Amino acid sequence: MNTNVRVAVDAMGGDHAPGEIVKGALQALESQKNLTLIFIGQQKPLEAELKKYSYDAGRVQTVFAEEVIEMAEPPVAAIRKKKNSSIVKGLNMVKHGEADAFVSAGSTGAVLAGGQLIVGRLKGVERPPLAPLIPTSKGVSLLIDCGANVDARASHLVQFAQMGSVYMERVVGVKNPRVAIVNIGAEEEKGNALVKETIPLLKECKNIQFTGSIEARDIPYGAADVIVCEAFVGNVILKLFEGTSSMLLGQVKKTMLSSLRTKIAAVLLKPALKKTLKGFDASRYGGAPLLGLKGLVVKTHGSAKASEVRQSVIQCVNFSKQKINEKISQELSAGEAR
Amino acid sequence: MNTNVRVAVDAMGGDHAPGEIVKGALQALESQKNLTLIFIGQQKPLEAELKKYSYDAGRVQTVFAEEVIEMAEPPVAAIRKKKNSSIVKGLNMVKHGEADAFVSAGSTGAVLAGGQLIVGRLKGVERPPLAPLIPTSKGVSLLIDCGANVDARASHLVQFAQMGSVYMERVVGVKNPRVAIVNIGAEEEKGNALVKETIPLLKECKNIQFTGSIEARDIPYGAADVIVCEAFVGNVILKLFEGTSSMLLGQVKKTMLSSLRTKIAAVLLKPALKKTLKGFDASRYGGAPLLGLKGLVVKTHGSAKASEVRQSVIQCVNFSKQKINEKISQELSAGEAR
Repeated sequence: MNTNVRVAVDAMGGDHAPGEIVKGALQALESQKNLTLIFIGQQKPLEAELKKYSYDAGRVQTVFAEEVIEMAEPPVAAIRKKKNSSIVKGLNMVKHGEADAFVSAGSTGAVLAGGQLIVGRLKGVERPPLAPLIPTSKGVSLLIDCGANVDARASHLVQFAQMGSVYMERVVGVKNPRVAIVNIGAEEEKGNALVKETIPLLKECKNIQFTGSIEARDIPYGAADVIVCEAFVGNVILKLFEGTSSMLLGQVKKTMLSSLRTKIAAVLLKPALKKTLKGFDASRYGGAPLLGLKGLVVKTHGSAKASEVRQSVIQCVNFSKQKINEKISQELSAGEAR
Repeated sequence: MNTNVRVAVDAMGGDHAPGEIVKGALQALESQKNLTLIFIGQQKPLEAELKKYSYDAGRVQTVFAEEVIEMAEPPVAAIRKKKNSSIVKGLNMVKHGEADAFVSAGSTGAVLAGGQLIVGRLKGVERPPLAPLIPTSKGVSLLIDCGANVDARASHLVQFAQMGSVYMERVVGVKNPRVAIVNIGAEEEKGNALVKETIPLLKECKNIQFTGSIEARDIPYGAADVIVCEAFVGNVILKLFEGTSSMLLGQVKKTMLSSLRTKIAAVLLKPALKKTLKGFDASRYGGAPLLGLKGLVVKTHGSAKASEVRQSVIQCVNFSKQKINEKISQELSAGEAR
């Protein structure tokens, strides 16, 4: 059995490409023995970047792609037109089995559209959700879907619950994860039409531990391991969580610099506070996998630095080793067979 | 012209009723010359509470209501059944012109349902939205709708934008408020079906300053004054904002108590930090008005203490003085007439 995992990396995507991307991926290479990297990008900048490092060249390949999909381009059109871009090439390698996974910090829309159009869905998967891990006061929760399928249907949300459950158990290591659906109250009669339709279906699911509704205020406290929601709501949750955290911590920092007295306090508090806040750094957990595809596609933040890229590549290795896709196919067809 | 504002107060609603409710309302009475209070509640506890204070008895009335609507009761059924509850009595007083406004910290569902069923909508208003003020790093924004109308339509959202604009300008004092719609990206083609349908309608609105889409991460930074969204999304925003803030500040506090060193820092930092965080205390701004009714109904937090109740009553006085409902009727019919 070949346990070598081949991860294709979009060297051109994101605010800090190719520097931080190459750096992070090579860090992952050093720590993962069974990893092969395939960097995809424009020849000149990519080769220039790789020259800065010494690494096991036998485990690093390069594929050149001279086109770049810009963040503002309409995703589907970009995927169709720019065949020679790092995103299209990377996804094609996954499709043709030349890579096990593809990691990109580039255009989210293009990665999502391309994941579906090029790599394609696993048999039985209706919609592939984007599922980032978000930090909580208890550890980490999976938010599924956070942007891939707006206006989803109840049956999609049920599959998100099943796929998310597999991911949390196998990749993150949470036994028998608690699955909850985002709602505007804990009572059964609360919710919009979609949520009211989905709840009874989730209750019937024998292969997940469904714990009912979760109100948004309980999400930061880790009240569920898998947080199921429609993509519009999930995207709002992800971004508001980031925005509120950064705004508040910014205010705390500003206060610390406001006088001599508070500056002294800052010096005393800093080491402990840094340690606390490290737990809330989403980049520690790598990128968001697009689940349910015939292969793995991971979207990292556009602002991803080396540590997030490294973590995303390692995540791909775990995902492949744990055979998540086989498990997802199994669970979904078990759900159908009932 | 009678400028006296009569505010009916639900003395029985909320976690701290009747103590904090009576205390806060009487504080408002002291600061507002043209205010009359009508306390509604169970005779015994209400009279016992009122006895603790000295106040201008000529401006305080009591109405006894022996039934109490519990938080978990199905709202519509409760409104129909418990005619002798403080919520039903208060809303009826507004309906019959015996009070200008009603403030309650009781069951949100019952207040929303009763507001529509008993008080009724202003002519032309399709759906009355619940619109709390949320603190931002720049001041305060109006989140509209945060829970009254799930599965709303585009035309409802357009009215929310107009009503919210009037409220921010007249009650909060923001000139020419910036109105944005919550979306999952800044680009035009982004969004779910509802948002895509609503954006062109908002662009056509001549009586608001529509600035386009707002991503959730920009909400805490005050990137818009009036934040328009469907109630499910609004409720998630409100509660996640509260949950994330309290979780993070809890973590900061916990860190401050973790060692002698950090405890010293805490003592030095506390006064300045307290001042900073005071700006983010939502209760400073009073409760959330249910806009578009024939009269004013204000829902305060279930956990409201005296300061929030005081502020909510003062808010009712401003609302009435500024003739918000006349202005809303004007703006909506101006919108239609175009």
